[in-house]
Amino acid sequence: MTSSLPASGLQLRSVVKESGELELSLQRVTVPAPAADEVVVRIEATPINPSDIGLLFGAADLSTLAVTGSGEHSVATARIAPAAMKSMAGRIGQSMPVGNEGAGTVVAAGSGSAAQALVGRTVAVLGGAMYSQFRTVKAEACLPLPAGTTAAEGASCFVNPLTALGMVETMRREGHSALVHTAAASNLGQMLNRICLADGVGLVNVVRKPEQESLLRGQGAKHIVSTASPAFVEDLTQALVATGATIAFDALGGGPLAGQILGAMEAAINRGAKEYSRYGSTTLKQAYLYGGLDTRPTEFPRNFGMTWAMGGWLLFPFLQKIGPEATQALKNRVAAELKTTFASHYTRTVSLAGALQSEAIAQYGQRATATKVLIDPSR
Amino acid sequence: MTSSLPASGLQLRSVVKESGELELSLQRVTVPAPAADEVVVRIEATPINPSDIGLLFGAADLSTLAVTGSGEHSVATARIAPAAMKSMAGRIGQSMPVGNEGAGTVVAAGSGSAAQALVGRTVAVLGGAMYSQFRTVKAEACLPLPAGTTAAEGASCFVNPLTALGMVETMRREGHSALVHTAAASNLGQMLNRICLADGVGLVNVVRKPEQESLLRGQGAKHIVSTASPAFVEDLTQALVATGATIAFDALGGGPLAGQILGAMEAAINRGAKEYSRYGSTTLKQAYLYGGLDTRPTEFPRNFGMTWAMGGWLLFPFLQKIGPEATQALKNRVAAELKTTFASHYTRTVSLAGALQSEAIAQYGQRATATKVLIDPSR
Repeated sequence: MTSSLPASGLQLRSVVKESGELELSLQRVTVPAPAADEVVVRIEATPINPSDIGLLFGAADLSTLAVTGSGEHSVATARIAPAAMKSMAGRIGQSMPVGNEGAGTVVAAGSGSAAQALVGRTVAVLGGAMYSQFRTVKAEACLPLPAGTTAAEGASCFVNPLTALGMVETMRREGHSALVHTAAASNLGQMLNRICLADGVGLVNVVRKPEQESLLRGQGAKHIVSTASPAFVEDLTQALVATGATIAFDALGGGPLAGQILGAMEAAINRGAKEYSRYGSTTLKQAYLYGGLDTRPTEFPRNFGMTWAMGGWLLFPFLQKIGPEATQALKNRVAAELKTTFASHYTRTVSLAGALQSEAIAQYGQRATATKVLIDPSR
Repeated sequence: MTSSLPASGLQLRSVVKESGELELSLQRVTVPAPAADEVVVRIEATPINPSDIGLLFGAADLSTLAVTGSGEHSVATARIAPAAMKSMAGRIGQSMPVGNEGAGTVVAAGSGSAAQALVGRTVAVLGGAMYSQFRTVKAEACLPLPAGTTAAEGASCFVNPLTALGMVETMRREGHSALVHTAAASNLGQMLNRICLADGVGLVNVVRKPEQESLLRGQGAKHIVSTASPAFVEDLTQALVATGATIAFDALGGGPLAGQILGAMEAAINRGAKEYSRYGSTTLKQAYLYGGLDTRPTEFPRNFGMTWAMGGWLLFPFLQKIGPEATQALKNRVAAELKTTFASHYTRTVSLAGALQSEAIAQYGQRATATKVLIDPSR
């Protein structure tokens, strides 16, 4: 075993208390010595993804946020409304580590050859609890980054890239030929646009602001429609006629959007229809809700016939379904195109303690498309 | 060819006019001579199912109903709101016959032996345009009713019976072991309850009135919950714990009900959970919306994790999916249990002209669970 094993390190924790209080704090935790097939990674870059924000804040009302202490003794608290506590029942009293993915340097390794081969390498890791200064993980969970790649460049190489590739793969496997994506100007959306351009797949990008439209237009996106436009539904329908998209991935989840997309798909299909059918078109129209940026209830008028489906979509069950070989093929593509197709952009980088400050939380807590924060726990 | 071929007969038609008017009337149409493999059926009983009402009235506002003329010259009209005309675009100007199923006597037949064998028999037919005095159909589309069965007893032997059996079959094929049904006191719901009791399948009956609960209780239903109860969600959750149901068939379609069922399924599953998962349980929770009794938008808060699906469910695509052999097995069961499991009950019987009168429409047009009207076109 390599001997530079740190004794302990800070780890960000989130806990929901019986009293209805959410508390974020830093705990000093022992760094477990690596087994033969394990390595210890000093985490140097780990993104705050929407999927992390759900675990970080639970159902807390961020308008009640208060921060006490400073540095590694910073503690952020917020209230959870009594009605929302029901959905938190399963996690009350559990101090939970956070952070799906990250990257850093291997500073210690077990005796196995796979582990030893990683010593000193910059690796990306998918494995939870990444908002930590050190993480002991299986060598096989590490993706060694190509030479010349920084931890910051590799920090987001799993969740967004595999999700974007997973959407295109789902589209193909379920028999559709083009797709719709909402919150399309996000890091994920920009990746998906680059994949679709490279692969010749029709993509309808749904945004909500003019500057998001410009951003995607500048990146070569062909079909962009804005929910802010009074002509939104008609614009969407025309883009659906042009692409033939019959599957959508919706990051908002709440509100009318997923239903509007299904309705516009039906209208697009029926523009070519010869005969009236009281049950609507027989083409399956599918909407997957993969996020919850819009926390309102999902609402739709069912103006799209009877041949439709809506459901949750998550990366990990998808990867399990396609199996390890197909998953590895997706990961290989990510590694090969990390600085191009799968490049991520961050608004700012903070330390672990910095992630607990009010103004940082005000920024990343709003779940906005364009602001993404990176944590560097080694700072 | 048997020679008692009638020259013409009345047929009920529904048309949506460009002006935004819906018109129901009776047309005198020629009865086509039967080909070798066809028979002519004098229709003596044909039900007004919810699936027929959609085609009959489209998006018309029944509070604007007006009836002129009398007898076979009766004409019923109603206004369609401009906003609702969009969904009617595909049927404007088309005079459409109505009526999915019915039963009657074979009064003429083509030269083929299968057709000849049916002369004088009472048969049930699934084939559209059943709100007619005579229908020329393929002999193979006829289900000869067992001796001693009247046309009225056999009139509803396809849509409701096959739908109820199709729900249980869908439950089994998709890996669930018990199911939830809404509008559970309907003719269909009562059939489903009898099937589930006979087959030992767990069924959660969701009703909205005390008398519906009594009705089902009297028929041996084990799990009945009422949306009218303040304890509805808790009662539903307990019934889901008791049955383990993870699939629901919802006749309402609109409103919060389908979402409440998915939420209660998740709560029921989590009562046995050891560990918090931010993405909810990994058990698939499925809701099929097979009707639209509640015309409000569908609305749900997504408090059931990420492993869920919602979608349309229709009998005919389901039968196509399972194929002719499995379909025939379901039909055989219906024929064998027509006076028991699959018995239907009607509030009243009307003639074709009677179906166009205000007070009849006021009754069947309300899409209520307990009122079902039968048309006898031979009256």
